[in-house]
Order: sequence, then structure tokens, then C-alpha cells
Amino acid sequence: MQYTAIKLIKRPGLQITPDIFETVTLATPELEDQQMLLKQTHMSLDPAMKGWMSEDRNSYIPPVELGEVMRSSGVAEVIESKNEQFPVGCRVVGMIGWTEYAVSTGQGLQILPPDVPAEAVLCVLSLPGLTAYQGLMEIGKAAAGETLVVSGAAGSVGAMVGQIAKAEGLHVVGTAGSDEKCRWLVEELGFDSAINYKSDDLYKQLAEATPDGVDLYFENTGGPVQHIVYGRMNAHGRIVVCGMIADYNTDKPSPGPNWINMIRRRLTIQGFAMPDHWDNVPAMTEKLSAYLMGGQIKYRAHKLDGLESAIEGINLLFTGGNTGKLMVEL
Amino acid sequence: MQYTAIKLIKRPGLQITPDIFETVTLATPELEDQQMLLKQTHMSLDPAMKGWMSEDRNSYIPPVELGEVMRSSGVAEVIESKNEQFPVGCRVVGMIGWTEYAVSTGQGLQILPPDVPAEAVLCVLSLPGLTAYQGLMEIGKAAAGETLVVSGAAGSVGAMVGQIAKAEGLHVVGTAGSDEKCRWLVEELGFDSAINYKSDDLYKQLAEATPDGVDLYFENTGGPVQHIVYGRMNAHGRIVVCGMIADYNTDKPSPGPNWINMIRRRLTIQGFAMPDHWDNVPAMTEKLSAYLMGGQIKYRAHKLDGLESAIEGINLLFTGGNTGKLMVEL
Repeated sequence: MQYTAIKLIKRPGLQITPDIFETVTLATPELEDQQMLLKQTHMSLDPAMKGWMSEDRNSYIPPVELGEVMRSSGVAEVIESKNEQFPVGCRVVGMIGWTEYAVSTGQGLQILPPDVPAEAVLCVLSLPGLTAYQGLMEIGKAAAGETLVVSGAAGSVGAMVGQIAKAEGLHVVGTAGSDEKCRWLVEELGFDSAINYKSDDLYKQLAEATPDGVDLYFENTGGPVQHIVYGRMNAHGRIVVCGMIADYNTDKPSPGPNWINMIRRRLTIQGFAMPDHWDNVPAMTEKLSAYLMGGQIKYRAHKLDGLESAIEGINLLFTGGNTGKLMVEL
Repeated sequence: MQYTAIKLIKRPGLQITPDIFETVTLATPELEDQQMLLKQTHMSLDPAMKGWMSEDRNSYIPPVELGEVMRSSGVAEVIESKNEQFPVGCRVVGMIGWTEYAVSTGQGLQILPPDVPAEAVLCVLSLPGLTAYQGLMEIGKAAAGETLVVSGAAGSVGAMVGQIAKAEGLHVVGTAGSDEKCRWLVEELGFDSAINYKSDDLYKQLAEATPDGVDLYFENTGGPVQHIVYGRMNAHGRIVVCGMIADYNTDKPSPGPNWINMIRRRLTIQGFAMPDHWDNVPAMTEKLSAYLMGGQIKYRAHKLDGLESAIEGINLLFTGGNTGKLMVEL
């Protein structure tokens, strides 16, 4: 059977452009013992992919090699199997790549319960939800009654961070790039307040939304919010650095804040990435499923149609053009 | 009996100027029950004092109030006593202030063994040594075999940090502001290398001194060393922020590095100040005494003469003019 896949053939410049990809037609091979054939139904697009495409070999995960199918997580159905752990008809989630079909031995894949929609899996039970939980609870040590600010709050990770924090009893303030996104955060997701970071009076709005200062800042963006929130941190405050999307598409990364406040307020700033924490995934998946079942977490999927829509569509993440977790339906 | 003390009467501007102090003549009072009269013999001058003089009420310790005797730690002898825990003739260390004599109930003071020189107390067994140990071992979690860079390495804290790290089996690189200081660090204190941060080829020298990257950075200064070392941090590296002396005398604090590297290398940056860690002092004093007795820690005192020498002398800390731990002999 013939299928389409997309390979990375060049490193990206400042922007992700179509010429760095090559669309190829491949044929499914005869399965060997322990192998199975996966048909991907939903493929996740994430800001971290920009890093995975880049040359940096000192990052938290090796780059995608040139000529390889582009890396991504997704939900797939098993349509042929020589592996009794993964019978035909079961659904899995894991790193499947930019491809319609894939052959796997099941390594790194998790079997999904039949009743969870694929959108919920990609929005909550995979990278965004895991990253949010790990960063907020394990790295950031969020505690009930504290004030959290999360930047990029309408993004796939940020929306999970804010909702988990509300479920855990924090006062939650989000920043996002449009008034529509801010309304969604407050009215649908239950944030205490949400601020459009493009406002003229960003400083004033952030100050008013955090009258008791900020105990925990979950950083997804960089940019002006970073500097303002940093200046409002309380003693023993924590900053969890998860993303810096404002700087991913520039060759002049913006300066960070001066470190004197680190001493005065005894702050901790910690960067993290999920590949260091895979051991924690089963326990976190259980927590996330409980929030989901309890109605404490809502999600919104922004779906593109067909594999090749990823090539242009991924840039929505960097322009802020997506509304909800970006994914491709195949 | 009449004695001299120095009060803080104004907040400092960018520089510490003589007009912010007032020298006064006071008389020792009649002692009440549980009180004793202290004659200070050695008074410590530390960079942190600039912060204590300032208005900032959100810092780790309240400011010295205007009209109060300026705060400082020092070594004193008990010359009269109505407190049987502190008999006449015993020596103590603690926060005594800019004064020749002081009345105390002993609160916050520690009795010193008779055989430790006052210089060793102020260099090793009080603020500089405690700060170095807390930051390096407790906050920074230094481990044998790792590479440490310490800025301000010839300063009172930096010199302790490097020597403790050598005693604990780390590869130790220091930065300092003169070739003479660098020679002292390598030849007398046993640093693996020391670099004059005023060199033209600072980047190259730091790179050559840390061929395996940097696991732990102990920050005392800010400035160009900060940015270069930050860029050389290894995965899971730790940065302990103890001082930012390059920025204490400026109203334009210099920007810090961009946070993208926090994620790529999963770094932790943590600021700290000793007042959060007084509980740990007895255990740390024991450790520091053991290094001292074992000959693993050397110290160098830069002594000024007489209480009033503090008024101008404190600025040596900000010009880098001191060679060794700055103190006043009374």
C-alpha cells in the first residue's frame, strides 16, 4: 500500500519555509515478527518542533536528522499486527512522525482506552498536559492559595497549566495575544483574569491582576510579560521556563532581566523539558485523566486537514494564529 | 565610659558617600540583669551593606533605619557581664554594628573558642564562609568531578567558595579583577585556573579553562563573565546567585541573558541570602572549622584601622581595591 510522508531535508532559517520539507510516497513493507502497521488519525503540531528541526546537538533531545521523516506525536490505529500486545483495532499514542502510516514494534507507544477522543489525547494526555503538570506541580511546586501567572495561556501548554492550577486552588492570571483568547480563558476555562499582552497598559493590568505579587510564573513566551512579572515576584518565588516562543523566530534573542532580584527575593528559575521526565508519565497520566473525567479540564482543538497541511500550518504557532491546540486530522 | 559609633542618617545614592553617616559619641549605660558590655575588636565590611542601607523593604532583610547605628558583623570581647552564659573575657561573633562598644543580652551571638584568630572568624567562620558553604553545597549541590566557575573569586565569599570546592574535589576556575589577584588564587589558594575579567580575550580564556563546559556557576559579580559562562553551561547545570557587585553602584542594571538556554540545557538559577538559612549555621560552622583545621582553607584579611576608617573604606569593595576580606581593626 502506498502512503505519503514528509521528510526534513534542510535546517530552518528564522522562519519555517516549505522548502525545508520533501513530500514522499512510500510503500508499506511486509511486517516482521513483533511489528504492526499504524494508520495515524491525528498528528500534533507543537512549538518545540522548531527546536527539533535545528542543528543544536546540545539541546534536550537530538535534532531530527536530514532525510528523516519529521518528528511528531500523534494518535494512530493498529490496522495490521504481528504483535499480540497491540491487536488490530486498538489505538495508540506516541511519537509517530509526519506520515500517514508507520511500522512500529510498539516501543514508546501507549495503548489508549476506547472512550477517550483523539483530541483529548493530544490536548490533555500527551505532551501539552504532561508538560503542564510536570512544570507546574513538580518543578514549580504550586501550592493552593498562591498566585500564578502563565504566559502564552491560550497555547496548548498554557491552557492546561491554568486549568490544573485552578483545580489545585491557585489564583490564576494568564496572558495571551488577543481579546478573544482572553475571553475564552476567563469565560470557558475559569481563569481569574486574562490579559492581552499587546495592551498599552500591560504593566498596570498585570499589577492590578496580581495585588499580592506573584509566587509562580510559568513562562511560555518571553517578551514584555517576562520582565514585568519578574519584577513582581514575591520572596521565594519560582519561575518555570517551558517555552520562549517570542524568541524562536529571531536571530537576536531579547535580553533577560538583571539578576539582582534573584537575590533580593531569593527566586528560583528553572528550565525543563519533558524528555528528562518520562519516568513520571504514568503517574501524571493518571492525574490528568482524573481532571479530565472530573470536568476540571476543557480543551479546544484547532484542526488542519490532511498531512500536507502541516507544512504551512505549523507557522500558525509562531504567529499566534491558532485557536486551540494545533493538530492535523488525517 | 564614652565611645564612638556611626549612625546611618541618609539613604545612599549610586555611591556610598561620607554624608550619609554621622559619627556620634555615646556613653555606656549601667548594665541591667542578663546584659553585658562588648568591646568590638574586629568589624567586618561586606558588599551586602549597600543593600542594607537602601530603602528596599522587600529585600531579604529589613533596611537599617535612619538614625540607627549601621549594621555589621564583628568579633568582640566581653568586658563587663551580668549574664553568666557570657563571662568577662570570652569572645563572641555576631551582628554588633559600627560601634566601639555595645550592650547585648547575647541574642544572636556565638561564643568563640579561644584559639581561633579574629581574622579567621571574620574570613571563614562568619558571613563569607557560611555564605560560600550554603551556596556551593546546599543550593548548588556541588559534586566531586564537576567544573565550577566562581566570579569575584578573590572576594571574601569567592575565595571561600573556590577553596571549599577544591576540598570537595571539583575543578575550580575563578575570575577576578587583577593579575595579582589571579596569581594569589592559583598559587596560594590552589584554584585550577584564574582569569582576569578585564582581559581582551575573556571569552577565549574562559573557554580554554572549561574544556568540559561548566556544571556550576557561583555568581558574585554580574558583568561579562555572567553571559559567557551562561553560554557554556552543561545540561542540568546550576547557577547560584549570591552577589551582583558590578550592578550595585549603577542605576542602570545590566540585562541578564536570554532564557532560551534555560530550556535547552535545563538549567536552574537560584538566588539566596543567608538570613533564610540561620538554622543551618551550627552544622556549617562545624564543616568550616574542619576545613580550617585541616589546612584546606587559607584567608587574607585587608585591615583598616579604627572605626571611622569604615566610612571611606567600604568603597574599596566596589572599586575592587581591597586585597582580601575587608575589615576594620578597632
